[in-house]
Amino acid sequence: MNVGFIGLGQMGLPMARNLLKARHSVTVYNRTRSRAEELQPDGASIAERPADVCSAEVVISLLADDAAVEAVILGEQNLPARLPAGGIHICMSTVSMTMARKLVAAHAAAETGYVSAPVFGRPDASAAAKLFVVAAGPAKLIERCRPLFDAVGQRTFLFGEDPVAANVVKLSGNFMIASVIETLGEVYALLRKSGVEPARFLEFATKSLFSAPVYKTYGEIIAKEKFQPAGFKVPLGLKDARLVLAAADAVATPMPIADVIHDHLLTALARGRKDWDWSSLARIAAENAGL
Amino acid sequence: MNVGFIGLGQMGLPMARNLLKARHSVTVYNRTRSRAEELQPDGASIAERPADVCSAEVVISLLADDAAVEAVILGEQNLPARLPAGGIHICMSTVSMTMARKLVAAHAAAETGYVSAPVFGRPDASAAAKLFVVAAGPAKLIERCRPLFDAVGQRTFLFGEDPVAANVVKLSGNFMIASVIETLGEVYALLRKSGVEPARFLEFATKSLFSAPVYKTYGEIIAKEKFQPAGFKVPLGLKDARLVLAAADAVATPMPIADVIHDHLLTALARGRKDWDWSSLARIAAENAGL
Amino acid sequence: MNVGFIGLGQMGLPMARNLLKARHSVTVYNRTRSRAEELQPDGASIAERPADVCSAEVVISLLADDAAVEAVILGEQNLPARLPAGGIHICMSTVSMTMARKLVAAHAAAETGYVSAPVFGRPDASAAAKLFVVAAGPAKLIERCRPLFDAVGQRTFLFGEDPVAANVVKLSGNFMIASVIETLGEVYALLRKSGVEPARFLEFATKSLFSAPVYKTYGEIIAKEKFQPAGFKVPLGLKDARLVLAAADAVATPMPIADVIHDHLLTALARGRKDWDWSSLARIAAENAGL
Amino acid sequence: MNVGFIGLGQMGLPMARNLLKARHSVTVYNRTRSRAEELQPDGASIAERPADVCSAEVVISLLADDAAVEAVILGEQNLPARLPAGGIHICMSTVSMTMARKLVAAHAAAETGYVSAPVFGRPDASAAAKLFVVAAGPAKLIERCRPLFDAVGQRTFLFGEDPVAANVVKLSGNFMIASVIETLGEVYALLRKSGVEPARFLEFATKSLFSAPVYKTYGEIIAKEKFQPAGFKVPLGLKDARLVLAAADAVATPMPIADVIHDHLLTALARGRKDWDWSSLARIAAENAGL
Repeated sequence: MNVGFIGLGQMGLPMARNLLKARHSVTVYNRTRSRAEELQPDGASIAERPADVCSAEVVISLLADDAAVEAVILGEQNLPARLPAGGIHICMSTVSMTMARKLVAAHAAAETGYVSAPVFGRPDASAAAKLFVVAAGPAKLIERCRPLFDAVGQRTFLFGEDPVAANVVKLSGNFMIASVIETLGEVYALLRKSGVEPARFLEFATKSLFSAPVYKTYGEIIAKEKFQPAGFKVPLGLKDARLVLAAADAVATPMPIADVIHDHLLTALARGRKDWDWSSLARIAAENAGL
Repeated sequence: MNVGFIGLGQMGLPMARNLLKARHSVTVYNRTRSRAEELQPDGASIAERPADVCSAEVVISLLADDAAVEAVILGEQNLPARLPAGGIHICMSTVSMTMARKLVAAHAAAETGYVSAPVFGRPDASAAAKLFVVAAGPAKLIERCRPLFDAVGQRTFLFGEDPVAANVVKLSGNFMIASVIETLGEVYALLRKSGVEPARFLEFATKSLFSAPVYKTYGEIIAKEKFQPAGFKVPLGLKDARLVLAAADAVATPMPIADVIHDHLLTALARGRKDWDWSSLARIAAENAGL
Repeated sequence: MNVGFIGLGQMGLPMARNLLKARHSVTVYNRTRSRAEELQPDGASIAERPADVCSAEVVISLLADDAAVEAVILGEQNLPARLPAGGIHICMSTVSMTMARKLVAAHAAAETGYVSAPVFGRPDASAAAKLFVVAAGPAKLIERCRPLFDAVGQRTFLFGEDPVAANVVKLSGNFMIASVIETLGEVYALLRKSGVEPARFLEFATKSLFSAPVYKTYGEIIAKEKFQPAGFKVPLGLKDARLVLAAADAVATPMPIADVIHDHLLTALARGRKDWDWSSLARIAAENAGL
Repeated sequence: MNVGFIGLGQMGLPMARNLLKARHSVTVYNRTRSRAEELQPDGASIAERPADVCSAEVVISLLADDAAVEAVILGEQNLPARLPAGGIHICMSTVSMTMARKLVAAHAAAETGYVSAPVFGRPDASAAAKLFVVAAGPAKLIERCRPLFDAVGQRTFLFGEDPVAANVVKLSGNFMIASVIETLGEVYALLRKSGVEPARFLEFATKSLFSAPVYKTYGEIIAKEKFQPAGFKVPLGLKDARLVLAAADAVATPMPIADVIHDHLLTALARGRKDWDWSSLARIAAENAGL
């Protein structure tokens, strides 16, 4: 397929490379051009402006936040209106519910295709094409996008015709990961102060009731306090905490654990850890215990 | 082996049965005698008093709380002192850290063997001999107890020579389960109010990052709100919440998620749900969202 | 003085009346014109559009939220640019820190005077000219506004030259009131379930360490559960909770009590209490205790 | 009157002195005898054992916690049984609800008089005889105790015939003070990070809606971070937080603000501040904001 790809961050760049490996024709755009150039040896064409990728039948975007989506996809660029007839925009960014609805409306107004398909996984999973894709949108469009999802992920989960469903699932999933991180932070603090090695506890946990990747991945990072280099930085984790709280606020749903996560991420930021991995939020629990 | 077994609740009774199946000779004691009689067809001998099981080389106890341990094991019964030379008491109860230390001291004073070995799993796992055993105590004693652990569980995890380590691991593990329950409660509330089916979300979660038994087991119970019959009742969950908070308090470790869990269990109790499964704490999040 | 007044809500209408009583010449504007007409017998002139009040030397605005300020003061109306040379706009609305800064910038660009002066007090205090005014802005402007502050309030507190200081003080003060309400809610629940009458406790509290108006006012409302008619409705309280959390988030300051307040107000809303007084957030603590 | 006084801590010693000033005859007992000797110049008699004060018609006790009450009042000493016919024990200690009930039962069994009368105020208020007394017990006994309450306090509040009512009021009042401290901690952090001086804000607050002693007293300590010397130390504040949470737990009442207070006091302790004033819990909010 002829694919446009906007946003070559830690997650996007390996995804674009995997699309190229799967023999799709890919034109890439990134604000910092040098990131795009890294993909030239893999066969990517480089676009100078977001609008230049719009001739592709499918454009994937994976941007950092609402502001980036506003600037690069909507606003002047007006990507929804520039897509060709039959074109599809797959938005893989983690955005607010407000932006999610705005994107749906913009494509509806332009009568172009729109699919929301955020992904789960850290940069290494992206490189290994092992992401989990959560997609929602009109079934016919989803089917056309399948080969692309397959090229970047290990499995795709569908959430119906309304694209915003995928966004609330993304925010929910990220919240669940954050909850695991905070929980491990609290448990490790208790264990350390009680004379039990967190690593030993983790081995038990991941081989019994908590045998899920999320415990293994974050359990090890936190036990070793190996928060740098970051796979996903504190400000991004904080952005996600804000998004889930905003989504919950809009539907009058209190989420007290999300409050705790948000507060601990704020403290991580206030302590100058903007370049640490977001899992360092677990360290606040340790510091609150005097560790 | 010649085994005494004290405490035939929902967890204990199937464990005793599994010991009998594994051809151990088992004498059982239970405050309500009828529970003990259920095991007669399986070949169990029935003791009239806790002290009557003490001639066994190993005595396993699995009681509801500190008060029951105080009444049945310590106090007048003074089981630690009644054990024969070389006898071992395996305490599988979930007790406070204070009681855990008191048990260690009582056996040390009596110069009898003591192993702490709480188990993880719900009644069905107990029936299927699929429990996870968390054991700590002198290595030589642990080795002697191995065949018994193997008869009731699928795997045993060791936490060193100090028996109380197993107790803090038990409290930590239960807290982690409760955190999963509360997290699911909050996420489901958000999803339901946003138009996404919890069951659909759960399928995604358990087939991607959250592929652990704890999510599957509790995720389904909570999605279906099938809180009765209870596998583990609200007052027992509340007891565990209190125990982990007390353990954390004693080592000056704040655990804000444990606070949330404790508060929601109190509300469940205040709403008259003492016979519901403790996972119904997830329903408080739903009710707080007006569901 | 020649005064324009925009926003005749429960707080604004009696303030405008007090300005008239103090023999200022007042032109009023309100979206719902009938509210403005109530002031005709008192001598007010009625403006058809916000812009029509701008000939006055001082324009006071007291609007419900950021959106109203955006629509009525900024946007097309562009009040900052329409003020006459030497004109002053006194913004008494409770707005976000973001809007507070935007207002400063808009007046700076238009080279017109701007003072931020939110008020504390409920409708009855507004009627009695007993409000507390919290003002910040250039000292010379503040001095010119003094007679107006004196006409509506019992006392004015100054917070320096930067107008936004008054806004953060307003958000802080409202948070402190909300904290008193939540605290009373929790304490009353404990007392009621322990057999002590809240009203009796309140008498002790307000005659000893807690002898401040805020305890008396809210303590009585909550003890009697007299949440209707509302002096300040749940959605407005929720707006304030959001504003203080947003202000705190922007400066990386966790405020866990604000989290609790926000969550309880969400629950009040989710339970359909949008027309109840915001102090009904105290009832959530009671309901969480099964009362 | 002939008065026995047990417990000459920071609060008790000045109270005993005030009783002497009011020309009561006072026999004092303190575990550390030197404290008792300080009162000899004021005319106090010194008892060697708690039991030695029991000949008095009224015995006041003011001890640090349940353990001290158990050791000095109950247990071997068995003060309830040693009181003379018609004797009254006034317990002014802040104890748990469990201990409060135990004391009632012990005096009922011994058929001696019992009044519960905790006090509010810091050491300086004790010295100035400006305490607030919260008393409950049989009306006839209360009347006999009146002159003593008047000698140490500025006002006495009655809570009926059941002595434990005074205890729940004491725990509730202390919680309300702690809530003010935590609230000020959060607000000051927000203000400081937003460029507003806490002291300036406090002046506004205490001269408007928050014109109560508790805001003035703690607002100044916290603004100046003058946490030493302590009027009431962190471990005592923590004890009170535990007591109110235990009282609330026993009647199934969640108190989320009490959770926050408890957690912040644990952190204060974990950071080694056992000799700081309990109002230093407000500093945790500041530290969480990176201040």
